[in-house]
Amino acid sequence: MIKINENYLKLEADYLFASVASRVREFEQKNPGRELVWMGIGDVTQPLPPACIVAFHRAVAELAQRQSFRGYGPSAGYGFLREAIARHDFQARGADISADEVFVSDGAKCDSANVQELFARELRLAIPDPVYPVYLESNVMAGRTGVARDGRYEGVTYLEATPANGYVPDLPAAPVDLIYLCFPNNPTGATATREQLGNWVDWARANRALILFDAAYESYIRDPDLPHSIYEIPGAQQVAIEFRSYSKSAGFTGVRCAYTVVPAACTAYTADGAPVALRELWRRRQDTKSNGVSYPVQRAAEALYGAEGQRQVRALTDGYLANAACALDALGRLGYRCSGGSNSPYIWLQVEGDSWTFFDRLLQRHGVVCTPGAGFGRCGEHHVRLSAFSSLAHTREAMRRMAGMH
Amino acid sequence: MIKINENYLKLEADYLFASVASRVREFEQKNPGRELVWMGIGDVTQPLPPACIVAFHRAVAELAQRQSFRGYGPSAGYGFLREAIARHDFQARGADISADEVFVSDGAKCDSANVQELFARELRLAIPDPVYPVYLESNVMAGRTGVARDGRYEGVTYLEATPANGYVPDLPAAPVDLIYLCFPNNPTGATATREQLGNWVDWARANRALILFDAAYESYIRDPDLPHSIYEIPGAQQVAIEFRSYSKSAGFTGVRCAYTVVPAACTAYTADGAPVALRELWRRRQDTKSNGVSYPVQRAAEALYGAEGQRQVRALTDGYLANAACALDALGRLGYRCSGGSNSPYIWLQVEGDSWTFFDRLLQRHGVVCTPGAGFGRCGEHHVRLSAFSSLAHTREAMRRMAGMH
Repeated sequence: MIKINENYLKLEADYLFASVASRVREFEQKNPGRELVWMGIGDVTQPLPPACIVAFHRAVAELAQRQSFRGYGPSAGYGFLREAIARHDFQARGADISADEVFVSDGAKCDSANVQELFARELRLAIPDPVYPVYLESNVMAGRTGVARDGRYEGVTYLEATPANGYVPDLPAAPVDLIYLCFPNNPTGATATREQLGNWVDWARANRALILFDAAYESYIRDPDLPHSIYEIPGAQQVAIEFRSYSKSAGFTGVRCAYTVVPAACTAYTADGAPVALRELWRRRQDTKSNGVSYPVQRAAEALYGAEGQRQVRALTDGYLANAACALDALGRLGYRCSGGSNSPYIWLQVEGDSWTFFDRLLQRHGVVCTPGAGFGRCGEHHVRLSAFSSLAHTREAMRRMAGMH
Repeated sequence: MIKINENYLKLEADYLFASVASRVREFEQKNPGRELVWMGIGDVTQPLPPACIVAFHRAVAELAQRQSFRGYGPSAGYGFLREAIARHDFQARGADISADEVFVSDGAKCDSANVQELFARELRLAIPDPVYPVYLESNVMAGRTGVARDGRYEGVTYLEATPANGYVPDLPAAPVDLIYLCFPNNPTGATATREQLGNWVDWARANRALILFDAAYESYIRDPDLPHSIYEIPGAQQVAIEFRSYSKSAGFTGVRCAYTVVPAACTAYTADGAPVALRELWRRRQDTKSNGVSYPVQRAAEALYGAEGQRQVRALTDGYLANAACALDALGRLGYRCSGGSNSPYIWLQVEGDSWTFFDRLLQRHGVVCTPGAGFGRCGEHHVRLSAFSSLAHTREAMRRMAGMH
């Protein structure tokens, strides 16, 4: 008899964004013609940078000719892209990362969900609360947690991000082995200073723990004192894997390109304590389970590193940050307490009552879609996430409608 | 202390195709200028069908404009593609599969490696020998096997495909829970008749087992009596998941698009014997761990189902089949015993001595790259795989060089 992985049955409900989408679909069916303003799911709305489009077309045209046709690419991504990444995203910021430590993929979601496969089933897991649900759910599916009670899975150390700590979790009080961190944070918009990240790196080194650092939103950082990469912190290469994405920097949510950095020095251990290079394990995983990313997509991503591409990415993210600033200003005037909204495309809003009720009220009465904070963890309760990925006009309209709630 | 998944240490050596590539690189470094003929890794060489190219460009252009821009798509793939798949690949052949049973992905390799996540760790696994290494290796990584001894992992039922059974394995003598099958087969090129597949389906139903059916090469079937899909067999929907790919049908190896069919009726069980619909588990997995396939890639795949696209796919696969026929004829004249080469792009060749020695001799002395059979399993020993994905000129050149071995 073929038996299922019963860990799936521990998952509490549908994947958060799928639930939001289904409530919105239901609303739309009942209210045809009612115009919604989307401030919820973190999807971008602006077109791809022109430099990408040119490179994308050129690469598609290459595939039309036998002489320039390319089949399977390297599962870790083409050298032209990995070299550009290492140079621009790391070496230019003083982080000593080389192209052979970069693994291109079709999404930071996949990578951050798949990376746990490299680790022992029995480990002490530390996951922020609130946070992007994929970190936790991928570990639930892998059997690293007990069942959920009152919204929390047994066997997980939750790193609480609350108004009290400025949404930057404190170091764990007891030892843990695997730590997920995300800065600028999804959903709170909080950023971590060099000193705060340094404390995490020191803690991980002292405890032989590993940090999985999600930097999918680093392109929104404008404060020159904030680190973009954890590898800007000395000693991080031994104890951290970093995830990056073009989804939010260049509008690649529908195009699909991202990458993961596993430094050569990054180490985990056998049960006997023998060190193992994680880069070789990740390479083996990717060679076995992936055939890499679409060639034209990799060319489109490469174009982001040219002078023109860099200017266009800056303009794109500046535009979204202008939306965030507009919303932050309006929400402040409405009396909301907010985190994020600068150095981040997300605004994390404290609300009265529970967050799904607020979500429903905002949707039903005002036609504005937000993301309920409770979907990101227990500490997300009494919060909702607004994103800046709409247009300025829609952002203003959403703020006008939210003013009507008061 | 962060501990690794020690199952990775059970993997015997590098991933097969990575090993082949590395031996070839070494040869090229030592023999600069020596022209190689690739008959090895199953990568295509002909450009994309023109209908794809047109659709691909059009979709890229859509992403350049705000009004037509698309961000995140459905993780299961767009309806336009899933509908075309259900209609053309299944309903047109009398297989009752609907669009909501189709899950688009970026590769059959990923899907066939990921699907095992849905099942209990403790299960009785049946894997053909020889076979595409991903089925076995993804299960080794997941801890479903013991260690390897003499090229075989403990705890796996190997379904032997040998000259004696025409490379179509017999039904298991003892009960198993999860069965991988691949027809037309990679690497043997063997096909399964309706009756043979029917026996497997009946067996799976009687034993509440599940069949994972890899049909990545179905577009090479020309014999009208051979089934293209396992769902052409009555009763298969309850007991089979099917994998398909555009890699070999339309030259998408570098473009990345494939799909998996999980029928609504397809069932596995909890430890208590309660039935669970596998479609919902796969949907949950994909929602949590994937953001779907690049939009322009999905449009390129959709174009394959138009009248023009269908003609172009046929011409493309006819061309590769002509190479296979040429090679088969030449190899027959050289006295080799072969399987495949019709209804399949692969030729499976019996050779003297061990297959890596043959590989090295063919490479070093004649500059022809094949794939050593031993990389596909113990029963692959004394065989090598040749693929028809080269040009006719290269195929002829390879045959000329192989004639020189004798």
